[in-house]
Amino acid sequence: MRTDRLETFADGVLAIAATLLILNVDTQVGEHVADLGDRLLEIWPSYAAYAVSFITIGIIWVNHHTIMEQVERADRIFLFLNVGFLLVVAFIPFPTRLVAEHIQHEGATAAALTYGITLTATAAMFNAVWFYASVGGRLLRPDHDPAAVKGISRSYLPAPWIYLAMTLTALVDPTASVILYGAFALFWVIESSVFGRARKQA
Amino acid sequence: MRTDRLETFADGVLAIAATLLILNVDTQVGEHVADLGDRLLEIWPSYAAYAVSFITIGIIWVNHHTIMEQVERADRIFLFLNVGFLLVVAFIPFPTRLVAEHIQHEGATAAALTYGITLTATAAMFNAVWFYASVGGRLLRPDHDPAAVKGISRSYLPAPWIYLAMTLTALVDPTASVILYGAFALFWVIESSVFGRARKQA
Amino acid sequence: MRTDRLETFADGVLAIAATLLILNVDTQVGEHVADLGDRLLEIWPSYAAYAVSFITIGIIWVNHHTIMEQVERADRIFLFLNVGFLLVVAFIPFPTRLVAEHIQHEGATAAALTYGITLTATAAMFNAVWFYASVGGRLLRPDHDPAAVKGISRSYLPAPWIYLAMTLTALVDPTASVILYGAFALFWVIESSVFGRARKQA
Amino acid sequence: MRTDRLETFADGVLAIAATLLILNVDTQVGEHVADLGDRLLEIWPSYAAYAVSFITIGIIWVNHHTIMEQVERADRIFLFLNVGFLLVVAFIPFPTRLVAEHIQHEGATAAALTYGITLTATAAMFNAVWFYASVGGRLLRPDHDPAAVKGISRSYLPAPWIYLAMTLTALVDPTASVILYGAFALFWVIESSVFGRARKQA
Repeated sequence: MRTDRLETFADGVLAIAATLLILNVDTQVGEHVADLGDRLLEIWPSYAAYAVSFITIGIIWVNHHTIMEQVERADRIFLFLNVGFLLVVAFIPFPTRLVAEHIQHEGATAAALTYGITLTATAAMFNAVWFYASVGGRLLRPDHDPAAVKGISRSYLPAPWIYLAMTLTALVDPTASVILYGAFALFWVIESSVFGRARKQA
Repeated sequence: MRTDRLETFADGVLAIAATLLILNVDTQVGEHVADLGDRLLEIWPSYAAYAVSFITIGIIWVNHHTIMEQVERADRIFLFLNVGFLLVVAFIPFPTRLVAEHIQHEGATAAALTYGITLTATAAMFNAVWFYASVGGRLLRPDHDPAAVKGISRSYLPAPWIYLAMTLTALVDPTASVILYGAFALFWVIESSVFGRARKQA
Repeated sequence: MRTDRLETFADGVLAIAATLLILNVDTQVGEHVADLGDRLLEIWPSYAAYAVSFITIGIIWVNHHTIMEQVERADRIFLFLNVGFLLVVAFIPFPTRLVAEHIQHEGATAAALTYGITLTATAAMFNAVWFYASVGGRLLRPDHDPAAVKGISRSYLPAPWIYLAMTLTALVDPTASVILYGAFALFWVIESSVFGRARKQA
Repeated sequence: MRTDRLETFADGVLAIAATLLILNVDTQVGEHVADLGDRLLEIWPSYAAYAVSFITIGIIWVNHHTIMEQVERADRIFLFLNVGFLLVVAFIPFPTRLVAEHIQHEGATAAALTYGITLTATAAMFNAVWFYASVGGRLLRPDHDPAAVKGISRSYLPAPWIYLAMTLTALVDPTASVILYGAFALFWVIESSVFGRARKQA
């Protein structure tokens, strides 16, 4: 099977999951708010959570883009691994709202744990998708770039463990873990784009 | 007419229906929850229902993918059969929430029945789409694989009856029927991917 | 400009508008319902409204598909006419809910009028899109089928007037107008597919 | 990297953001409204806000379409700039609801400011996307049209400053700023389509 409908479906789920995040911000402001200006400043964690989750889904999209460039065919197992991967990605809006609402109040640990578990599962499923396709070159294009394949494997393999470590941080200090989630997203964006370009030019 | 816009539209509806499922989980946790951790454990049926429905929609997507590989053209009747098919698929998020909320409480039978009727209708409409296209090779590619066509027909034909049987189980024991819906989805994933590959290699 | 991104965007809006319709059904069943079975039977107008609007959006999608087969290029005016057309289509879920909730109660006239005005505006915008592209062959493919172009013009031109007549019926009898909306959708599906095929074969 | 998946993802986010706008209108009418007809007239600012934001997102889509016609390749920085751009576009439904609900009541300034800041950020991110791709012809097609590239640069550069000025107007008169947002959208549609054609023909 060709991979084009897989990409359409994946892009659809990723685009919708990202765009639904705004509903989390929207519910923070009721219809009859006494002082709208104050309320809009008060809910800043919702904006931060929106931005971190949107960028995280953006990173997932860019990375899915990257691996699909090396993949030529899809078999049933590969399609269902992708469904499982999208299942956890589409879950992200829910813990995003939990973190935004609870990080400054009771329930911060439970919220930060749920967020972290979701992202750990996303990273693990992403690896399952990639290694199923790439081990032994199973589904790769005949003209795939072996250096790129190795580079992808090396850069994605630690991600679930890093997310697991950040998730466990939530047991000690939920605020710290949430800051780490955001910092890791920013780091990935900068590392893979700015430094990635510098490396390529070197 | 070519089938590419049909695939875009179908993938769109399927992706959105799957991604909207998270709203069902989201509504289970109000804004002011006394103990967030407890609440997040309590609503486990919502996670299970989310996973079963997401995977079911994933299976539907993979199967639509499979039949469209054999189909070359679309006429008006085929397009409207697809609209009817998508109409019932897009209905799935609603009974999913009903099952998640009611399976442990009053209303379990009504919820499990509604879920089962929706999936039975989905399977029936899927067969209508497929047999309209394939009987007499009406819309199939001139170079379609007759063995694949026969295999598709044989594997999809019993699905509405299986779902009907599971639906009727809800009248006696709604919990049993819900377990069957989930088990059937898992069975299909494993059978069509792992065993499917084994068969092909044999 | 080519028309492929226009088709992707239009298919996206149409798919989302259709899939969002299920949220209207969903809100009819609160979290704590005394008798779920009774409630699920009581809200049958929501299912009917869901089906009629889903099929109507499906018809719009099929028709947009039909006209885009004759169109080769898009200019700015054509793109913005399409945006205006999608603006009214994306409005459909709102009056759908109004009709479902009010047709058996107070407010039936206002609900049926709002639904009818929305569909009249949709049909009018659809004609604006089509006649802008087709008059003088402005944006049509050089090898467009003149008979098909004439047929499209003839079959779409009366639609806004038919919808206007049905809308005005709501002032006298809202139930009658709602039955007409549904009957017209069914008529179009059957006329354009079954009879359309018969005509072509003749 | 090719740009086709970027266009699919961007079209998905833009289509969803536009289609979600109807939820803002929908929430203005509760389930048990005393006089539906009156209520539907009362909420006219919601219709106006829906139309202005839908058309604004339509303009953004047309403009993204325009620049992607000159762009051939995408690197990581370009992809992440697009993610950042889509992040602010997907935010638009939230301030749209704020403006619709508050423009005639308390909180009008805060609502109009939030709307204006979002559109200013959108225009700024759009420029970042465009100038990253076009400066020195970095990602442009080898056969790009230099006159078109210059024209795009000239027409998009002032947009953030115009939106900033309209945003600051909200501090003095929020109603005036909201009228300006709508007028600017209409102006852009007419200027770029009708007059754009006239210019080309001259």
